[in-house]
Amino acid sequence: MSLNNQIDSVSVLPLGGIGEIGKNMMIIEQNDEILIIDAGIKFPTDELYGVDYVIPDITYLLKNKDRIKGIALTHGHMDHIGGLPYVLKQLGDIPIYGTKLTLGLLRGKLEEHNLLSDTYLRHVYPGHSVDIGSFEVEFIRVNHSISDACALAVHTKAGPIVYASDFKLDQTPISGDITDIHRLAELGKEGVLALFSDSTNAEHEGYTSSEKEVQKTIEKSFADAEQKIIVASFASNIHRIQQVFDAAQKFNRKVALSGRSMLNNVDIASDLGYLDIPEGILIDSNDVDNYPPHKVVLLSTGSQGEPMAALTRIARGDHYHISIGDGDTVLVSATAIPGNAKAVGHTINQLFERGADVIYEAISGVHVSGHASQEELKLMLNLTRPQYFFPVHGEYRHLHLHAKLANEVCVPKENIFIPDLGDKISLSKEQGYVEDSVRAGRVLVDGSGVGDVGNVVLRDRRLLSENGILMVVVTIDRNGKVLSGPDIITRGFVYVRESGDLIRDATRRAEKALAECEEEGITEWSTLKSKIRDSLDDYIYHRIKRNPMILPIIMEV
Amino acid sequence: MSLNNQIDSVSVLPLGGIGEIGKNMMIIEQNDEILIIDAGIKFPTDELYGVDYVIPDITYLLKNKDRIKGIALTHGHMDHIGGLPYVLKQLGDIPIYGTKLTLGLLRGKLEEHNLLSDTYLRHVYPGHSVDIGSFEVEFIRVNHSISDACALAVHTKAGPIVYASDFKLDQTPISGDITDIHRLAELGKEGVLALFSDSTNAEHEGYTSSEKEVQKTIEKSFADAEQKIIVASFASNIHRIQQVFDAAQKFNRKVALSGRSMLNNVDIASDLGYLDIPEGILIDSNDVDNYPPHKVVLLSTGSQGEPMAALTRIARGDHYHISIGDGDTVLVSATAIPGNAKAVGHTINQLFERGADVIYEAISGVHVSGHASQEELKLMLNLTRPQYFFPVHGEYRHLHLHAKLANEVCVPKENIFIPDLGDKISLSKEQGYVEDSVRAGRVLVDGSGVGDVGNVVLRDRRLLSENGILMVVVTIDRNGKVLSGPDIITRGFVYVRESGDLIRDATRRAEKALAECEEEGITEWSTLKSKIRDSLDDYIYHRIKRNPMILPIIMEV
Repeated sequence: MSLNNQIDSVSVLPLGGIGEIGKNMMIIEQNDEILIIDAGIKFPTDELYGVDYVIPDITYLLKNKDRIKGIALTHGHMDHIGGLPYVLKQLGDIPIYGTKLTLGLLRGKLEEHNLLSDTYLRHVYPGHSVDIGSFEVEFIRVNHSISDACALAVHTKAGPIVYASDFKLDQTPISGDITDIHRLAELGKEGVLALFSDSTNAEHEGYTSSEKEVQKTIEKSFADAEQKIIVASFASNIHRIQQVFDAAQKFNRKVALSGRSMLNNVDIASDLGYLDIPEGILIDSNDVDNYPPHKVVLLSTGSQGEPMAALTRIARGDHYHISIGDGDTVLVSATAIPGNAKAVGHTINQLFERGADVIYEAISGVHVSGHASQEELKLMLNLTRPQYFFPVHGEYRHLHLHAKLANEVCVPKENIFIPDLGDKISLSKEQGYVEDSVRAGRVLVDGSGVGDVGNVVLRDRRLLSENGILMVVVTIDRNGKVLSGPDIITRGFVYVRESGDLIRDATRRAEKALAECEEEGITEWSTLKSKIRDSLDDYIYHRIKRNPMILPIIMEV
Repeated sequence: MSLNNQIDSVSVLPLGGIGEIGKNMMIIEQNDEILIIDAGIKFPTDELYGVDYVIPDITYLLKNKDRIKGIALTHGHMDHIGGLPYVLKQLGDIPIYGTKLTLGLLRGKLEEHNLLSDTYLRHVYPGHSVDIGSFEVEFIRVNHSISDACALAVHTKAGPIVYASDFKLDQTPISGDITDIHRLAELGKEGVLALFSDSTNAEHEGYTSSEKEVQKTIEKSFADAEQKIIVASFASNIHRIQQVFDAAQKFNRKVALSGRSMLNNVDIASDLGYLDIPEGILIDSNDVDNYPPHKVVLLSTGSQGEPMAALTRIARGDHYHISIGDGDTVLVSATAIPGNAKAVGHTINQLFERGADVIYEAISGVHVSGHASQEELKLMLNLTRPQYFFPVHGEYRHLHLHAKLANEVCVPKENIFIPDLGDKISLSKEQGYVEDSVRAGRVLVDGSGVGDVGNVVLRDRRLLSENGILMVVVTIDRNGKVLSGPDIITRGFVYVRESGDLIRDATRRAEKALAECEEEGITEWSTLKSKIRDSLDDYIYHRIKRNPMILPIIMEV
């Protein structure tokens, strides 16, 4: 035991981003101090009926609140900062560290939740370090689909942990700076304890294309376009937005912005100097009709087919003033986030139907990914030469493929970890092992309710969505004598007007079941309910091969 | 008017497969006679809550039953033959023409619906023609992901219409015969009135790979595999299944089949001579455990992540006797049909988590598409040189891209049609135009109900799925005096145990609304209901930012 105390060890504990794409959150601990890296949200998958967001379960952090020294943010995407309002509400005032644009975007989020005044934000330049408790946290520039993204090197007593987060190696980025491969190489030479690296694109062979490649497609589209141009893109992709402004300048078009997040982000990014907007080019979207169609570009949200976003409304034909038609050009300059493919496809279909020429990812180079492909992942591994490796930010197939790559490159199998969320892994130069496992997982946000939608509610929503509900309502007196009903009411089950027979027959069966209960002197509600349910369950299924939720409701007067 | 009578014209009328992938169905008419081509189903998209299948609306055919001369089938996939049981039930006994395997697969479907004895199936060899009414229908072999697929040349008095259906040009197919490009060229030389061609892969540049390419991946995987191998594939992809048998033979493994459709299709295909199963290679899936793992292959269903299919159960760990673990190999030899990507991804994740090595489309050549890519589509256009062109089998984006290709290749814009379903288009050597529009669209099948699920039921299922239902139940007497309740019951709304306050407050508001009604002497049910609803609607939303379906239920004694 005394030996263990002499070994310099550090613990890592993932609370999100493993076995999933989204809600990234990682904890590093040493000397009883906790450092948090990122706090993201995840968009719900289909089986999470009605859920708005998913955030990490931070029970462990609540229990160890006093030990938290700070939160370091890698970049300003929602899957890395979107969970902060929820986290801060529970954990109180924790200092937050990040680059200028990251904090600028976070500020907007915190304002929405009235949390800004209470929060201590500390700005760090890429290439600089900051002490957070006993951790020296170094911000290392990386390329990604948002400006000002960083990997972190967390210098611990057991050695540096490189948290590469989301990155790619863009040799010709839009804004000059490339991923700081020199510093990564230096760290690799000195000895990296562990690398945590982005697995999103682990399925993709080769290299991810440069953002510069998109420029060619954008310029060609602008050159070919005869009428109005609409470009839909992620509002956070400042480099992409810059390229649209540049092309508009070159082809002598005015730019109008549409969609709240587009307006906000362009505002923040140009205020902070991340966006260079040529003078006089910006016009109000209400003024679009005052210009000839071949003189304007509309830069809008909706690249994900979000029902209320600008492009989606335009495609549907219910945007309050912008229409689209023959001869217009639409660039959908984004990829569909998993789960959105159908909505995006639907929007593109509608735009084609309205006569527009649509240029989208599947048929052109109008978008490149922000995530490293296999060759870049291998290079990151070779640059940093880590003792331990953790593939992160991916579903299990991505993590396993990335683990395979790491093993081929430089890390022995026993030093590669694909932990469960909540696994606390002790790392030292001598050994790495799972030392503990704490509560972790997901918390569902639905409306203003955080965590109150669980498995029971979800199961009911699923059942209701599949075959609806059939209610049997009856009023009885104390002796179990039926005073009114049974009435059958359905929603989402059958079209009532055409199903009179079925409902009549079902009502008769319920009546019979109740009469039997009365005869037998059964007055206990739970028995009455199960008798009613039994009388209908199989019957309904055999009659129409559907299983609605059957809900007996008894009123007593 | 008399001129029109002298022009030899024919009409085409699509009832499915335009603006969608699935439920393909086309009508050709001349001399008051109707020929039907295919009758498929479509799998429901997410917004069709609880719907099992979508089939074409055949109101027009029902009204013109006496004019129908027959149904010609291009191939045996469900999106081309799956709607026949529903169609035959309504239209009665219509002669059906198809190739041997197509009819073999159809026979199974008809048996399930007890329709086989009543149906007249007529077998046609590829390369041969058959007279259906005044139509001469020629079956022309094409390559596709199912054996015995054909394009049709329907010889009409206005000229031949080539209905290319689903196809690709595989220069090295598994079973010898390539797409009959010679006959297509001949038709093109003689003059084709119209071409209907497959748009599924219109987004894909270049050529679709040959089925032979898959052989390399399968053989490499078999060579590398150390333990058990599971191959999941479409049960209808007989060529793929043949390749698995061939590889098993080569690497000295036994083959077990799992999944009802796999057993059925292997049975049908080998009976009809489309599958060559080496003697002694087939074992019962219950006997898998009697062989060493490196001596067996399991050929299973579940390549689409279907919840009850063999592979899905194995991945979930609840297959009744087959398990998977470290060292086992799984080949998912199929592509995810749109809408299934998430389910397939989930299955693959689970297999990786169980320790299996999973080989799937995104990371290998374990699957090739059955549909022609752009260069093949152009070749089809150039071979047939049609006067009129109809891109079919695709969503609107595919159809528009295919139309663009056709225009680049050989068809003037005004001769390219992307009709709505139900548009009746008159074609003659002189002109092509939409002459009429009849009722067409979709019919939803849910359980044994055909067409009884419509917009009202779907809207309710959607509302229920998002925020559940809140019922307010009250018993009153004739004078509107409350005798019992109001009671609030919810399903899929909140976790009731933790939401006591909310429900109590809501109950109080409903009580107050009822008391006001009593005071004002309101006894009319519809007014009572809307008063109850009004008392809760905004309140609930402001309290928890959710909009459950609010359903007041009044009982009178």
